[in-house]
Amino acid sequence: MVARKVHDEFHLAWKLAVISTDQFSPADIDEIFMVAGRMAAQPGHPLAGKTLANLFYEPSTRTSSSFHAAMTRLGGSVIPINEVHYSSVSKGESLEDTVRTLACYVDIIVLRHSDDDAAERAVKVCDVPIINGGNGTGEHPTQALLDLYTIWKERGRIDGLTVTMMGDLKYGRTVHSLAKLLRMYDVGLNFVSPETLRLPKEYLRDGDRQFAGLDQVIADTDVLYVTRVQKERCAPDPTIDISYAVTADDMARAAPDMVLMHPLPRVGEIPPELDTDPRAAYFRQMKYGLFVRMALLATMLGWG
Amino acid sequence: MVARKVHDEFHLAWKLAVISTDQFSPADIDEIFMVAGRMAAQPGHPLAGKTLANLFYEPSTRTSSSFHAAMTRLGGSVIPINEVHYSSVSKGESLEDTVRTLACYVDIIVLRHSDDDAAERAVKVCDVPIINGGNGTGEHPTQALLDLYTIWKERGRIDGLTVTMMGDLKYGRTVHSLAKLLRMYDVGLNFVSPETLRLPKEYLRDGDRQFAGLDQVIADTDVLYVTRVQKERCAPDPTIDISYAVTADDMARAAPDMVLMHPLPRVGEIPPELDTDPRAAYFRQMKYGLFVRMALLATMLGWG
Amino acid sequence: MVARKVHDEFHLAWKLAVISTDQFSPADIDEIFMVAGRMAAQPGHPLAGKTLANLFYEPSTRTSSSFHAAMTRLGGSVIPINEVHYSSVSKGESLEDTVRTLACYVDIIVLRHSDDDAAERAVKVCDVPIINGGNGTGEHPTQALLDLYTIWKERGRIDGLTVTMMGDLKYGRTVHSLAKLLRMYDVGLNFVSPETLRLPKEYLRDGDRQFAGLDQVIADTDVLYVTRVQKERCAPDPTIDISYAVTADDMARAAPDMVLMHPLPRVGEIPPELDTDPRAAYFRQMKYGLFVRMALLATMLGWG
Repeated sequence: MVARKVHDEFHLAWKLAVISTDQFSPADIDEIFMVAGRMAAQPGHPLAGKTLANLFYEPSTRTSSSFHAAMTRLGGSVIPINEVHYSSVSKGESLEDTVRTLACYVDIIVLRHSDDDAAERAVKVCDVPIINGGNGTGEHPTQALLDLYTIWKERGRIDGLTVTMMGDLKYGRTVHSLAKLLRMYDVGLNFVSPETLRLPKEYLRDGDRQFAGLDQVIADTDVLYVTRVQKERCAPDPTIDISYAVTADDMARAAPDMVLMHPLPRVGEIPPELDTDPRAAYFRQMKYGLFVRMALLATMLGWG
Repeated sequence: MVARKVHDEFHLAWKLAVISTDQFSPADIDEIFMVAGRMAAQPGHPLAGKTLANLFYEPSTRTSSSFHAAMTRLGGSVIPINEVHYSSVSKGESLEDTVRTLACYVDIIVLRHSDDDAAERAVKVCDVPIINGGNGTGEHPTQALLDLYTIWKERGRIDGLTVTMMGDLKYGRTVHSLAKLLRMYDVGLNFVSPETLRLPKEYLRDGDRQFAGLDQVIADTDVLYVTRVQKERCAPDPTIDISYAVTADDMARAAPDMVLMHPLPRVGEIPPELDTDPRAAYFRQMKYGLFVRMALLATMLGWG
Repeated sequence: MVARKVHDEFHLAWKLAVISTDQFSPADIDEIFMVAGRMAAQPGHPLAGKTLANLFYEPSTRTSSSFHAAMTRLGGSVIPINEVHYSSVSKGESLEDTVRTLACYVDIIVLRHSDDDAAERAVKVCDVPIINGGNGTGEHPTQALLDLYTIWKERGRIDGLTVTMMGDLKYGRTVHSLAKLLRMYDVGLNFVSPETLRLPKEYLRDGDRQFAGLDQVIADTDVLYVTRVQKERCAPDPTIDISYAVTADDMARAAPDMVLMHPLPRVGEIPPELDTDPRAAYFRQMKYGLFVRMALLATMLGWG
């Protein structure tokens, strides 16, 4: 199923609830990036005594650990709820009731859920700030923010760059969310994918360029954003080609200041041999993500 | 299986171990409620450096999250152990050894277990304070305390009230525990349930009234306490009627200051349409529960 | 499979990564024990704002809880990752990528994994201190340290003692690791096991004595170290005799200052009836373990 564009009319202030990338203006992004920059230095413990509920209906060690560490570095505490299928939910409780209950206990909630409308349903009943940690094939707004922050930190600017996205462009929600943010800036976008995993038409805009391989665009790319083919999302079509991998030859042809990104986990799209290339930014990307999430938590809980 | 009354002769001081509602005198309850009242305001971090082990052999997101948040709001830390079936226990370790080991590491333990005698077995070997977080069909004393606290906060008193309990009165341990506490006060008790889920005779007292439906008692009820039919507890009789639900008509006939309670999770006994009725107290009940558990943790660890 | 001796040439400084008992000199051990002694008193919160990732690919409530409590008693926070099979790993992520990612988020990592070479693979890519929390049939160095600390605390010395190890000496990694540490001191070693679970020849040294039963050595034993027969490790030979248990008769013949140890969990090797014998040190052993792990975490993170 292609992500439904459920958020287009969504104008809730992001300091109350981060649900969709549609909520962010360039000015908002400037503010978040400024705070994220301060988070790289130890910002003290402004969230001491505050508690975050990490409510993960879908497992994601990476995202949950990132938010967990972001909260504890700010002095706060975390209730990790990774096993919702073992809990009240197996007794038939609705998402709304679970969220309302947790909102009685904690100061902020991160929600990850397999349903596209989960975050919006949750925000309607939630008395505390809530952050969408990924909903179905829909949005993963904090991933998009940290991706954008990585580009900005690595290149010093966003305007004027050419960004090439490669891999599963059909099901990958990180691609969809990042593309939406990038379109607020003056960037060129290339999309490289097998025929069956092309970007859905609803996300295409005039001026976008689509390719079947990396050869034609690698030399002119400032940022190469590679994504995993999520096998669990393309069950209807198990024959999809997942051989789209970056090679040493590609890197040889790329510019010396190109930035190679990946949201991770990877399963072969970027071989470990490339990890020592200074252009490989995907682990720095993880670190930037920590700072962006610290910035969101701190700001939404009243810091600064 | 009906809960065995294993605790009648249990006189351990509750500040050492909270095992059964039988441990509480009205004076004890006054003390706990007074401390709980102070917990609504941020009480600082008196438990900084203290650690709680949340030892849950049975999953319960609600109870474990409530204790987790209670501990972290007081500045303490929590070791969440929700997956006992994956751990030492699968290597054949006894409950007693697990509890004794954790007592070497932490300052206080919350135990939830499916065996009726688990809490009592644990307290015999435990060198640190322990709280029964629900044992089998037996007791769930902190739930009973928070239910009682909710009644007191919502109505300003307990003596003189008429409390109606509806739903699964046979297997529901929250009903059994709350009824025991309420009988220390001057209250009238009504029990509404299908024939097959009636309150076990051992819990009935002179003056109690039993009904098959809500119609006859709703108008004269000060507190309506609704419970879920726990399907997982009534496997022997899957034909049990679970259609006992509160309706808008019922609420129309109820007094304007009636208090509608539910320990949650609910599966249809109270439709979400009633959530906006100011008499619907079940989410406030969650919040009160946080304060009661904070009061227990703080007091048992020497606060005040 | 017998543990491979992969660490013999491993000379990484233990303050950077604790991978193998081979890293410790007697002077290192003196330092760790001195710090552990200070940990018994509340050492304040030197690790406030620091975060530990407890990365457990194999479940172990005991080890993970011990590290968790050690970190929180020092004022730090813990990200518990017990369900790796539900997470990124099920999406095909390598151990190396998971470790590198977590190293972006946290200050120190404890890793437990079923592969013998996991800790060494992890340390190669890990930018923060890492502690081996048990790898396959290989090493469990912090267990060996806490065992040695227990002997030292219970007897006041290590040199000159006779230590008898009994149980599964073939597969038990705690025995192998402890034996390696003990050989740095002037100790006599006895090994008691069924024929099929004897200590692998590579761990035997001149002067060691092997027995089929406890009778011949109990009277001359200063420290009796009993281990569990790990059924999950000896699947190829389910007929192995696990009836090696310490009896009240054995204890009657033992010296009044003998120390009875067990890494726990136990499944019958030491009956609970012996728990009240003052020579039964296995729960004190748990407490000592907490202090040793606090000492490691604090030292590796720059305390003192």
